[in-house]
Amino acid sequence: MTLGGLLGGPPAVVAAGVDVFSDALRAQGAEVHDVDWRPPGFGDPADLAALALDVRRASANRTAVERVLAAGSVLVDVRPAREVLDLPDRMLLHAGPPIDWEHASGPLRGAFIGACLYEGWADTEDDAVRMLAAGEIQLDPCHHHRTVGPMAGVVSPSMWMWCLEDPVHGGQAYCSLNEGLGKVLRYGAYGPEVVERLQWMSDVLGPVLSKAVRSRPGDPLDVKGILAQMLQMGDEGHNRNRAGSLMTLRELSPAIVEVDAPSSDISAVLRFIGGNEHFFLNLGMPTAKLAMDSARDIPGSTMLTVMARNGTEFGIQTAGTGDRWFTGPANTPVGLFLGDYGPDDANPDIGDSAITETYGVGGFSMAAAPAIVRFVGGSVPDALATTERMYQVTLTENPAMAIPIMGFRGAPTGIDVLKVARTGWLPQINTGMAGRVAGTGQVGAGLVQPPQECFEKALVALAEESRTA
Amino acid sequence: MTLGGLLGGPPAVVAAGVDVFSDALRAQGAEVHDVDWRPPGFGDPADLAALALDVRRASANRTAVERVLAAGSVLVDVRPAREVLDLPDRMLLHAGPPIDWEHASGPLRGAFIGACLYEGWADTEDDAVRMLAAGEIQLDPCHHHRTVGPMAGVVSPSMWMWCLEDPVHGGQAYCSLNEGLGKVLRYGAYGPEVVERLQWMSDVLGPVLSKAVRSRPGDPLDVKGILAQMLQMGDEGHNRNRAGSLMTLRELSPAIVEVDAPSSDISAVLRFIGGNEHFFLNLGMPTAKLAMDSARDIPGSTMLTVMARNGTEFGIQTAGTGDRWFTGPANTPVGLFLGDYGPDDANPDIGDSAITETYGVGGFSMAAAPAIVRFVGGSVPDALATTERMYQVTLTENPAMAIPIMGFRGAPTGIDVLKVARTGWLPQINTGMAGRVAGTGQVGAGLVQPPQECFEKALVALAEESRTA
Repeated sequence: MTLGGLLGGPPAVVAAGVDVFSDALRAQGAEVHDVDWRPPGFGDPADLAALALDVRRASANRTAVERVLAAGSVLVDVRPAREVLDLPDRMLLHAGPPIDWEHASGPLRGAFIGACLYEGWADTEDDAVRMLAAGEIQLDPCHHHRTVGPMAGVVSPSMWMWCLEDPVHGGQAYCSLNEGLGKVLRYGAYGPEVVERLQWMSDVLGPVLSKAVRSRPGDPLDVKGILAQMLQMGDEGHNRNRAGSLMTLRELSPAIVEVDAPSSDISAVLRFIGGNEHFFLNLGMPTAKLAMDSARDIPGSTMLTVMARNGTEFGIQTAGTGDRWFTGPANTPVGLFLGDYGPDDANPDIGDSAITETYGVGGFSMAAAPAIVRFVGGSVPDALATTERMYQVTLTENPAMAIPIMGFRGAPTGIDVLKVARTGWLPQINTGMAGRVAGTGQVGAGLVQPPQECFEKALVALAEESRTA
Repeated sequence: MTLGGLLGGPPAVVAAGVDVFSDALRAQGAEVHDVDWRPPGFGDPADLAALALDVRRASANRTAVERVLAAGSVLVDVRPAREVLDLPDRMLLHAGPPIDWEHASGPLRGAFIGACLYEGWADTEDDAVRMLAAGEIQLDPCHHHRTVGPMAGVVSPSMWMWCLEDPVHGGQAYCSLNEGLGKVLRYGAYGPEVVERLQWMSDVLGPVLSKAVRSRPGDPLDVKGILAQMLQMGDEGHNRNRAGSLMTLRELSPAIVEVDAPSSDISAVLRFIGGNEHFFLNLGMPTAKLAMDSARDIPGSTMLTVMARNGTEFGIQTAGTGDRWFTGPANTPVGLFLGDYGPDDANPDIGDSAITETYGVGGFSMAAAPAIVRFVGGSVPDALATTERMYQVTLTENPAMAIPIMGFRGAPTGIDVLKVARTGWLPQINTGMAGRVAGTGQVGAGLVQPPQECFEKALVALAEESRTA
């Protein structure tokens, strides 16, 4: 083409990237063709190269995902946290990376207050706040105790815990019993009805479940099997647990009715479980935790083992970097709100429940649960596209977690820090939203991603480890 | 193009329709392009015109589907067939259109034999066969008694029946209790374990369920609501009833445990329900029956109210032609087989369960249940395409039965004889397969369509009624 040809007609412009340029041209009457383009990931090229060239990486990541896929999960017991976690008096566990009272957000503070009231360490809210602010209560992440907690994730010594085992690798994981929705401790509520419910859970629910579970010692509940079935039944195992909760009820109810307890207690337990569509969540989370813990401490592996949020910070851990946390400020979810609540009422992202996405279910398997868009927002095509996209940041597909609508393709599993950095696609999490003011409870549910900063820090650390290996 | 141009090279042929022509040309070395073409429906043009021009049709069909959409379904009681259906001694109900012993297929004969043994009318199989062949047992379709029965659908006086009511139109419908899978009466098995199970169902299951259902008189189970939820949970309500069975268990179990009965009976009842993924089917079928019965006897309507099979013939009824049956020879399903069974073992299509497709769920809503292809055969895209295609032969979409993966589009509902004739698309049914030899039980599950003949006969009758109206 001659220069005359180029200038002989009105200019046609192809614009990629930020739209300030194309808008300016369009305002001047030019014909502009926008190209959907995004920056090619992140990370120092030297770090990316160090990891790309690390000869250990391929086999380390293969070992990591093989362990994750092989891990099993069975329910072996229900016991108080005091016994099973050796949790000392005046210690509370919480979701996410380490945090102190000063930096804790509203819902986490609310849950700490509620736990102090429930344990009888404080008689009033003011008492509890004073004790907590004075550092009289020790605070420690659940993840440091082979435990996961949804939302605030606060565990106190008197709470009864699901005790799960991985029969393949021998690991253990723990989670408290799910309280239901609305004004509940894990969403930061701590009013009298919250503490009363927790008391009933200690007095009736925990002991009945414990006896029921112990009555079938040779036949432990196959929790991984239930999670796999859920993906065939419209659940994704994080914010849809309807089928899972029903299957758990079906499996446990014959043993529950044979527990030696008043029939009014038995029937109350069945009603409580039957009335809580998220009852299974607290079994699914430790199932994911067992699998991810089985892949800890594999030098050279760039796979995530933890994504967790404390309401202030988002933290991740990788198989190649042990128990080290890489953190960044937590984002606030975008989604649908309950009642009159709106975006201003939402606390930043909180909870250990992103262990489900770390394992490849939850937000990663939303294609299995198209109805979830009515709860967390977005459209059905978004849900399908999210799962498609997560295959680009993961190491493998989990054949045990097959997604029917994807032609039974396995869930995208094993988030690779290197793939996240190269593509710039951050993991997709769906989540409940807690009110930012302590005591509020749940305000909605939505979609959220980790801050890129966690992955940038993990990338630097992995590259550094790689160079010194 | 000149004639010379046409003949100047080798011929290229475009072939539509039966492949005998294109195969013959291909054998002679011609280049053949096959076109996927199908005949444009069926029916005498004069009959099609009479119906197309019937001024009553549009409003009659609107009335019909409005009744179907509005119909509700609640569980009000569980009672023996003897009481609730006024079923006389020595009468058996069966699935599908009317049939006698001589024309009954193996599984239907097997179920008749089993029912005679269970009722104590006969002591041996030979005895039972003699009585049945001699006409000493009266046989009548379930549909003539506001009843539906899966597969052989045999109902005898001592069987306990789910009693459902439509609170909107005041209708009633009935169905026996589901026995589970494998060697069961409804699949034509009649061995000692079949009769023993039926006996336990009469002695324990029926009475316990009856007391549980009666203990919540102001709070009847909303069966339509459960069916709607099922479509959000990977069930289609005919051959996948997993979520529905679990929800039924959840709803009934608190009342069941409070029934005054030995705790071993209570726990056996919970195990029986929990172990049967099709337990809900016998609640879903009468729910569909209630809706379709609410649209009976609407002159000018071309909508189906019944599709039912007795293992020999397939029969349909329409809203415009009352209780008249239009029948044709039943096809044999194509699908997946259990164990060593194969296509030669399968009996032709049998059961009243196609009432679910008549209502718009089951095969019509397979898009909601992609995992079903592992049970009935086909692929996930087939399941989606089937639902898409059924919109072409139905009058409306049922907003209460939303299919998430279709962007929450309602199930295709109200099969229109005229649309079936115009398009040539026959309704898609998914179904269990009974062994063709009496006593075998289930051999598989698959996909099947009605014989076109039913629709041809219905079309003639509707056109005749139209001309004389």
